[in-house]
Amino acid sequence: MTHPVKRRGRPRKNPQSHEDTRQLLVRAGLELLTEQGYVSTGLEQILKKAGVPKGSFYYYFDSKEAFAKAVLESYDDYFQHRLKTSLYQANLSPMARLTDFVERSIQGMEKHQFRRGCLVGNLAQEVLVLPEGFGQQLDDIFTRWEQLVADCLEAACQDRELSDGLDCQALARFFWIGWEGAVMRARLVGSSEPMQAFYRGFRQLIQV
Amino acid sequence: MTHPVKRRGRPRKNPQSHEDTRQLLVRAGLELLTEQGYVSTGLEQILKKAGVPKGSFYYYFDSKEAFAKAVLESYDDYFQHRLKTSLYQANLSPMARLTDFVERSIQGMEKHQFRRGCLVGNLAQEVLVLPEGFGQQLDDIFTRWEQLVADCLEAACQDRELSDGLDCQALARFFWIGWEGAVMRARLVGSSEPMQAFYRGFRQLIQV
Repeated sequence: MTHPVKRRGRPRKNPQSHEDTRQLLVRAGLELLTEQGYVSTGLEQILKKAGVPKGSFYYYFDSKEAFAKAVLESYDDYFQHRLKTSLYQANLSPMARLTDFVERSIQGMEKHQFRRGCLVGNLAQEVLVLPEGFGQQLDDIFTRWEQLVADCLEAACQDRELSDGLDCQALARFFWIGWEGAVMRARLVGSSEPMQAFYRGFRQLIQV
Repeated sequence: MTHPVKRRGRPRKNPQSHEDTRQLLVRAGLELLTEQGYVSTGLEQILKKAGVPKGSFYYYFDSKEAFAKAVLESYDDYFQHRLKTSLYQANLSPMARLTDFVERSIQGMEKHQFRRGCLVGNLAQEVLVLPEGFGQQLDDIFTRWEQLVADCLEAACQDRELSDGLDCQALARFFWIGWEGAVMRARLVGSSEPMQAFYRGFRQLIQV
C-alpha cells in the first residue's frame, strides 16, 4: 500500500508514508461514519481513532466534507469488490451467487455485532443535513450496485434458473430498496433475522 | 386541545395553556426530528421553532432524551391513527385498504417535498448514538404497526382476496422491512418512485 513517491508539503513527524496516513484516516472514517453517521462523528474522534495529528488531516483533506466524500468513494470501491467477489463466482449458479452475497453480508454484520450496517444507507438517512452533492453521490452508488444485481438476475434468466421475461432491472431495484431496510432493522434489533426474512421473501417473489 | 386544569409550578409568561405549550414543543420536535434526526437537532432549534423559552421546556421535560421519547410516543399515536384510518375502512376490500395507506403515505411525502420520511426509520438509523431505551421503543413501535398490517392481510385471506395459507405475519414483517427502505430511498431521490416500486413488488409477491 505504500508509495515511494514523495509529495511536497508539510513535513511529517511520523515514519509512515503519505499513503499510509491517508489510508489510516479513511479507514477510521469508514468505521466511525458507518457506526455513527456524518453528523455525530467529530473530526477529533477521527484523528484519535487514526492516531494522526490535525495538521496531517488538513494536508490530505480540505474539510470534513471532502473527507467524508473520500470515505464514501472508498466504501463504494470496497463494496463493489465485495459484490463482485460473490456475483462473479463462475462455479456457482447466478442465484447461488446472490445468496452468497446475502450470506456474506450477514456474516459481516455479525462480525461487527450489528454496529456497522451500510455506510450508504446510513448517510442516505442523513441526506437532509449533509452538505450538497452527497445525495447524488449516494444515489449513483445505489445505481451501480443495482446494475451488478440486475446483471446477476439476467444471467439467472439466461440459465433458466429464473423464468424468462422477468424485469431484472426492476427486481434489482426492489432488492436494494428492501435490502437497505433489512440492514437497518437488523442493526436495530441486533440480529440477522430481518435480512433473512427479506431475502426469503425476495426469493419467493421471483419464485426460486 | 386546551385543558382548563391548571398545574402548579413555574409561572407562565405567555397566555397559552400548559397543554398548548407542551403540544407546541412536541410538534416542533416531530418536524425537526423527522427531518434531521436526534443528533442534528439542538435544543435551541426546538425552542426557536416552538417559540417557547428554555425554562418552559424544562418544566415539561427533564432532558432532550425525555423529550425525544415523548415525541416518539406522539408520532406512534399519530401514525397508528393514520394506519387505522386506512386499514379499518369497512367500505374497501382489505387489500384496497393497504393500497390506500400506501397512497396516503406517498401524498404525505410529496406534501413535505420528501423532507420528512418516517421518524421511526430515521431514529432507527441512529440507534447506536441514541440514549439507551430508544432501540426497544422503536422495535416495539414497528411490532405494533406490523400487527395492524398482518390483521389486514388476514382479513384479505378470509375474504379470499389473497390465497389462503399465506403467512400474513411474515408478510407484514416483510412489508415493513422493505417499506422503511423505500421511504429512505424516496427521501434520497426526492421522488415517490421507490415507494411505488416497492409496493408493486410486494403485491406481485402476494399475487394480487
